[in-house]
Amino acid sequence: MSNRQLPTASAVEMAARQREISISEFFLKNRHLLGFDTPAKALLTAVKEAVDNAIDACEEARIFPEIYVEVRHRHGHIGVVVEDNGPGIVESQIARIFGKLLYGSKFHKLSQSRGQQGMGISAAGMYGQLSVGKPLHILSRVAGDELATELYVSIDTARNRPDIHKKKHVAWDHPHGTRVEMEMEGRPQKGPHSVEVYLKQTAIANPHVTITCRDPQGKRTCYARSIDELPPLPKEIKPHPHGIELGRLIQMLSNTGCHTLLKFLVDEFSSVGNKTASAIIAEAGRRLSNRSYPRHIARSQATALHRAIQNSRIPAPRTDCIVPIGEQQLLKGLHSEIEADFYTVTTRPAAAYRGNPFQVEVGLAYGRPGDFRVYVDESGHMHNKDIHDKSAAVDLIAAKNEPARLLRFANRVPLLYQQSSCAITRAVIQTNWRGYGLNQPKGTLPVAPMAILVHVASVWVPYTSESKEAIEPYPEILKEIKLGLQKCGRELARHLRRNLQLRREYDKRAYIEKYLPHIGIALQEILALGDEERDATVTQLDDTLHKTRAT
Amino acid sequence: MSNRQLPTASAVEMAARQREISISEFFLKNRHLLGFDTPAKALLTAVKEAVDNAIDACEEARIFPEIYVEVRHRHGHIGVVVEDNGPGIVESQIARIFGKLLYGSKFHKLSQSRGQQGMGISAAGMYGQLSVGKPLHILSRVAGDELATELYVSIDTARNRPDIHKKKHVAWDHPHGTRVEMEMEGRPQKGPHSVEVYLKQTAIANPHVTITCRDPQGKRTCYARSIDELPPLPKEIKPHPHGIELGRLIQMLSNTGCHTLLKFLVDEFSSVGNKTASAIIAEAGRRLSNRSYPRHIARSQATALHRAIQNSRIPAPRTDCIVPIGEQQLLKGLHSEIEADFYTVTTRPAAAYRGNPFQVEVGLAYGRPGDFRVYVDESGHMHNKDIHDKSAAVDLIAAKNEPARLLRFANRVPLLYQQSSCAITRAVIQTNWRGYGLNQPKGTLPVAPMAILVHVASVWVPYTSESKEAIEPYPEILKEIKLGLQKCGRELARHLRRNLQLRREYDKRAYIEKYLPHIGIALQEILALGDEERDATVTQLDDTLHKTRAT
Repeated sequence: MSNRQLPTASAVEMAARQREISISEFFLKNRHLLGFDTPAKALLTAVKEAVDNAIDACEEARIFPEIYVEVRHRHGHIGVVVEDNGPGIVESQIARIFGKLLYGSKFHKLSQSRGQQGMGISAAGMYGQLSVGKPLHILSRVAGDELATELYVSIDTARNRPDIHKKKHVAWDHPHGTRVEMEMEGRPQKGPHSVEVYLKQTAIANPHVTITCRDPQGKRTCYARSIDELPPLPKEIKPHPHGIELGRLIQMLSNTGCHTLLKFLVDEFSSVGNKTASAIIAEAGRRLSNRSYPRHIARSQATALHRAIQNSRIPAPRTDCIVPIGEQQLLKGLHSEIEADFYTVTTRPAAAYRGNPFQVEVGLAYGRPGDFRVYVDESGHMHNKDIHDKSAAVDLIAAKNEPARLLRFANRVPLLYQQSSCAITRAVIQTNWRGYGLNQPKGTLPVAPMAILVHVASVWVPYTSESKEAIEPYPEILKEIKLGLQKCGRELARHLRRNLQLRREYDKRAYIEKYLPHIGIALQEILALGDEERDATVTQLDDTLHKTRAT
Repeated sequence: MSNRQLPTASAVEMAARQREISISEFFLKNRHLLGFDTPAKALLTAVKEAVDNAIDACEEARIFPEIYVEVRHRHGHIGVVVEDNGPGIVESQIARIFGKLLYGSKFHKLSQSRGQQGMGISAAGMYGQLSVGKPLHILSRVAGDELATELYVSIDTARNRPDIHKKKHVAWDHPHGTRVEMEMEGRPQKGPHSVEVYLKQTAIANPHVTITCRDPQGKRTCYARSIDELPPLPKEIKPHPHGIELGRLIQMLSNTGCHTLLKFLVDEFSSVGNKTASAIIAEAGRRLSNRSYPRHIARSQATALHRAIQNSRIPAPRTDCIVPIGEQQLLKGLHSEIEADFYTVTTRPAAAYRGNPFQVEVGLAYGRPGDFRVYVDESGHMHNKDIHDKSAAVDLIAAKNEPARLLRFANRVPLLYQQSSCAITRAVIQTNWRGYGLNQPKGTLPVAPMAILVHVASVWVPYTSESKEAIEPYPEILKEIKLGLQKCGRELARHLRRNLQLRREYDKRAYIEKYLPHIGIALQEILALGDEERDATVTQLDDTLHKTRAT
């Protein structure tokens, strides 16, 4: 008997233990998913989330972003300040933006932005709260307002709701903008995972942004903007029909305000005009017509409609929802932050994965300055370059016998962790760099004094985790990255061949030059020239030699 | 002027676009985070989530789990049925358990279980809903109830709330249990990511479970339980003080019902008795005493208390919250599902990472049967083995020149994806297998006809993503896995040496045996023996040879 009763008791007991889990509790316990696993990574993630938000806000308000970042030691913890000249935040929204996970303006629309989840900055606050028990300190002023709003906000994790601690209105010397200050357990890093490298890479992909940074030692670095144009504002788009699953289609049909199927297809999707819509409906059959009432469409009809969409030729999605950095701008960014012998960039045409438009850009910076010194001047004379090796400036480029450095970007944001699981890394490894004259051990990155920059811009970047550190390797994305790498690789190969020729030429010429004086002496004897005539002849010969060879 | 007004307008416009994002919407758009990125993976993930829940429920109710899994093609989609003989689910809970993300009984307690997030099965339902528009179909009966409850449930993703479609009470031939049926876009796989391999691995780590599976071709496979004992029920524990962050400590202090600091430390943490608690409080100083009222403790005092905790010697956490598979059981599991020449297993003592107890188990199965055929019988004679190569049974073991197969488990659940980012893989690669007589190219898995099984059990497994496919490589976890691997590696080395000797012996003996008849003939001539005498002598020689050499 007791055996029989046990399961009942269990079912009731187990029911009593069922509880709702708040999203904040979930991510507090799983904070490594958001990039807050170690103090070193947490610091960088916090800076990144705040800077991303700041730049997004400025761009949306069409303001040239000016960002100030400060990291300092404070009572044994780390203090981080990020300040922007953006539009400011309306008072009623401040607490929720900083004190609630999954709250934001970017999740529900299809258009390119740095943030997309509405989690990052609140998560940084939650980490500060967990690690040192301090709330976020916010200051924000909307242009036109006399005073700024100042408040301290933490998260009530059991309810995923903001707790406001103090709120007052204070004078602030910024006409508009937002300032967030966080305290947390953190560890400033040197090298590839440092705030410095993150900001430098941000400057490369965002040449319209000015960033000033003050590090824990009080050293100030400024990355000034190098172009005078804001990137255009990405347009919002509707989903593309080819990316819609059956279940989603059924849901959209039952939620639409449109009164005819034709209007539904035209209004709620991108790339569908009346003609395409009519063709889809005709293809679907099943007694569906242009005037069918969407909400009355049966399951079997929806299934037929879904199949018809998959089988129809529909134009590719519009691409003004994506704003690439642009070849000129990218080149400027590379030039101002990486010193190299050779640069090449390419912006691929837009493509789509699962109905989401995306666009790939690739840049290469090759050769530490000074590695190859020969150059030809205007008169055709060859010289060795005399360049100071600015060691601080070559951080981003690999040494001669190291694997090339990868600079990965998604929607203009540098990706600093999880390199090995990223689509970009995979595409670089799958590219045959030997064909371009580089050394590449099997299954690895090419070994060369080179930085490879890849930028993937999309209305929805498929990150492999909430911490947005790597891109899921969808086949369409891999393909586009590889095409971009190949284009740049060919340019690089041309440069390397030219350099090789130049070097050979230089060696040959040096050889001839070595014997020119002897030829002079021989001529002097044969033709009985004076010393001056001999020298003039040698100079003339030298000159002729350079001019004929220089092309 | 217009430039000045723009930011204001933007701030107001932007505020209007701020919205809450429901957790269901979030994971619907990011469904790859939950393991539903491709139809192949989605099918496996759905089966896994349902089976995990089924076994958890049975164990909690102390019932020997009997699970039935069915996968079939249905209207161009895939239908999945998972049925258990568990305690059933109380009617009022069914809809929320299957139709709400982040709802469950396992998140808030510290004890080992397969599920820990309250997301998996609802996510599977959400995927079915998205991909083919079908709700989950649930049948559940609590023992003692006359009828079972049947209902269809989908998720209202905008609100993360269950939508119940039909509910009725029906007769069901199971006295108690739960049956969930899902329809989805899916693709049954062969090989390492197949439902079959997942179930086989589940059987290895859960020898107390019986699983019957019906595949899309109608073939039934049964993995019968091989032991007659249920694993003990893991105990729930309190957090260990060494894993508590300052912010959490402050929060716990202000939420506690305890009236003295001493009682707070003893009651709310594991491994803290009166003596340890007093020592911590004395170490903290700052006018804190055993009788301080926890809610009145100031920030600076809490900081001192936190530091004192870190500096105090506190016993390791209790380990009855973890239930390893056990060496005997693991060996049984390996024997019944993997056919090999040699098996060895080890269960490490429990350890802790960030205050969370965990325990590692390692098993090796080496040699496809038939790869090494020599054995010695009781009379000391050597023979070649005559074993049928059951090709179906060797699925889990690598071929001779392939990298060893890794069987990764967390809380008795097989991990089938993201092998390269898993702590287990890293530990195997970092182990020096050459020292145990195996071939191991630098930085890779050992190359051998071998399966390496590693099980990590913990009250909180730090998965690298919500889809629970890999374990975060915390140093403490890596270390324990490596110690386990080394123990098994030494056993393997011993076996290989013994085998090598046996093989040499066999070769030598075969050589001698080849010449025995000739020796017989020679003796016959020398000693003038009859043919019968000669043969008897040869037999005697042969016998002596075997007996003296057999040890």
